[in-house]
Amino acid sequence: MGAREPDGLTSAPLAMTMGDPAGIGPDITLAAWRERESHALPPFVVFGDPETFAARAAALGVDVAVETVTDLARAAPVFERSLPVWPFACAAPARAGKPDPRNAPAVIGAIEAAVLAIRKGEARAVVTNPVAKSVLMAAGFAHPGHTEFLGTLAETHFGMPDAHPVMLLASDELKVVPLTVHIPLADVPQAITTRSIVRTAGILNRSLIEDFGIARPRIAVTGLNPHAGEDGRLGDEDERIIAPAIAALRDAGLAVTGPYPADTLFHAAARETYDAVLAMYHDQALIPIKTLAFDRGVNVTIGLPFVRTSPDHGTAFPIAGSGTAQARSLIEAIKVADAMSRRRAERV
Amino acid sequence: MGAREPDGLTSAPLAMTMGDPAGIGPDITLAAWRERESHALPPFVVFGDPETFAARAAALGVDVAVETVTDLARAAPVFERSLPVWPFACAAPARAGKPDPRNAPAVIGAIEAAVLAIRKGEARAVVTNPVAKSVLMAAGFAHPGHTEFLGTLAETHFGMPDAHPVMLLASDELKVVPLTVHIPLADVPQAITTRSIVRTAGILNRSLIEDFGIARPRIAVTGLNPHAGEDGRLGDEDERIIAPAIAALRDAGLAVTGPYPADTLFHAAARETYDAVLAMYHDQALIPIKTLAFDRGVNVTIGLPFVRTSPDHGTAFPIAGSGTAQARSLIEAIKVADAMSRRRAERV
Repeated sequence: MGAREPDGLTSAPLAMTMGDPAGIGPDITLAAWRERESHALPPFVVFGDPETFAARAAALGVDVAVETVTDLARAAPVFERSLPVWPFACAAPARAGKPDPRNAPAVIGAIEAAVLAIRKGEARAVVTNPVAKSVLMAAGFAHPGHTEFLGTLAETHFGMPDAHPVMLLASDELKVVPLTVHIPLADVPQAITTRSIVRTAGILNRSLIEDFGIARPRIAVTGLNPHAGEDGRLGDEDERIIAPAIAALRDAGLAVTGPYPADTLFHAAARETYDAVLAMYHDQALIPIKTLAFDRGVNVTIGLPFVRTSPDHGTAFPIAGSGTAQARSLIEAIKVADAMSRRRAERV
Repeated sequence: MGAREPDGLTSAPLAMTMGDPAGIGPDITLAAWRERESHALPPFVVFGDPETFAARAAALGVDVAVETVTDLARAAPVFERSLPVWPFACAAPARAGKPDPRNAPAVIGAIEAAVLAIRKGEARAVVTNPVAKSVLMAAGFAHPGHTEFLGTLAETHFGMPDAHPVMLLASDELKVVPLTVHIPLADVPQAITTRSIVRTAGILNRSLIEDFGIARPRIAVTGLNPHAGEDGRLGDEDERIIAPAIAALRDAGLAVTGPYPADTLFHAAARETYDAVLAMYHDQALIPIKTLAFDRGVNVTIGLPFVRTSPDHGTAFPIAGSGTAQARSLIEAIKVADAMSRRRAERV
């Protein structure tokens, strides 16, 4: 399977959103572009403010030319020599480390434009740089987060009613989905339902097949309580909520097992027994992957009609423009978006 | 610092309890004894049923002689040639994989006898093999667990009122204490208190100094909620309960910091910044150490007037007597008990 021949969808570039222009998004994007050859990265086009990227390159003292492109079909040759930017101008000058709500419309608009480019077949996946929810909310952004906003865009632009985007954290060592994400720990027991487990495991199963090329995915489900409840002695959710979901999934023919005690599920030998884990809450999923693969984890949104990945970190305002930001996670996010979108294209 | 000269307390053997005789305790104890030279293990004496150990050795086909000792001062030379056993007979024949509540009194009695031997200065630390709480409870054992029973023994035999035993999980990579342990996840938010954090961190700090030789321990405290609550947006316990405890500990002169988001606290670079972590609940503490050091983690009880360690696994009834049980964690537990009790003796 040649990787670079002009074979329709897979010849289209990746769309990379700028994220918050005051964060490290521009830093790591410039770094990823400079390492495009050593990592054999596919062409990507930044959806964002050309001035911000040119100014950040100058501030960092890196020799990267920024070139505006308005025809994505012509981006690949530009990518060889310059960072191609599909222009979405900031309203105020972007200052590293100083987020400005006046630039929120550009941040949000760039994300929507990237999704539209995929809809039109001009880009094949979106890689998003980090945004700061608090900055966007100050400008009226009403979505709980980046991922939920992408779900709304799927509904609007892909005619996908009831989109259910799911966060998958992926590295070479581990793929893991948190069933619940950004809610207080005290709300977790009431938030997990048999239906949400069935639905999320179903989305995960399909993504493992279609996006990751695993013919018959093995999914391990964690318990909620210590020792997965120890036969109900340490909480009843494992038996009352999680076990029935696993039974239903198995009835449906999926290779789903559990609930397993979470503490013994992530060492090397245990990881050989499954392809992905469905965990019940944020830290149960994020602790193992960040322990194993800090700086290399990729945030993948599955359950959408398009491929979206992002680095597994935030805007890191305090180090923006300092030259210390690490691009490794963004580079991995580009690679994962590339591989996932190729697999989806092969299936079409 | 010579390791073997007869220098008072440190020349006394370690007391190893048999644990449930139907579990893997005998298997791994025999394996540890056989590896005593390659691991340079100090002499240990089993407190348990000699018949059980002799029978298990025969069943496993390993050439280990079992020798009864009734004078612990003479155990060291026995240890060179045989497994020394301070006899505590089982009421019923122990069958591998078939726990029998009739043997609960011997299991419990061996633990108390080991603690008494330390009290008398005849043993210097206790290493406990796994017990099955459900088997002991069927025989009337009323303590929530092994650790709490040892706390009661500290009160009874060492005149230590209000003993507060604390579970520390230790490996080369990480030392971590769960503030709450075997309770349902739903009960965790109400169970963590500012006072328990202050008290537990104080016990941890003292143990790091006295048992592990760290002059000024750096203790990192996790948050309870995702992102440590994100300034209260994802739960208020981090600000309301945990932060005041850290402030009080710092006022008291301890190098305690946090609350930190738990997911980014356990990768290699983060682990360089502290000596131990105080986590808020079972999986938050156990996931990282079992991910990093499965089969090598040691369960250490701190806050007691004597040293107690144990392997970080259970009775594993299904594989008892099969020859597949791994002794690595027990061997590490012996080494840690040896090192801790030497450090305590040096301070006397």
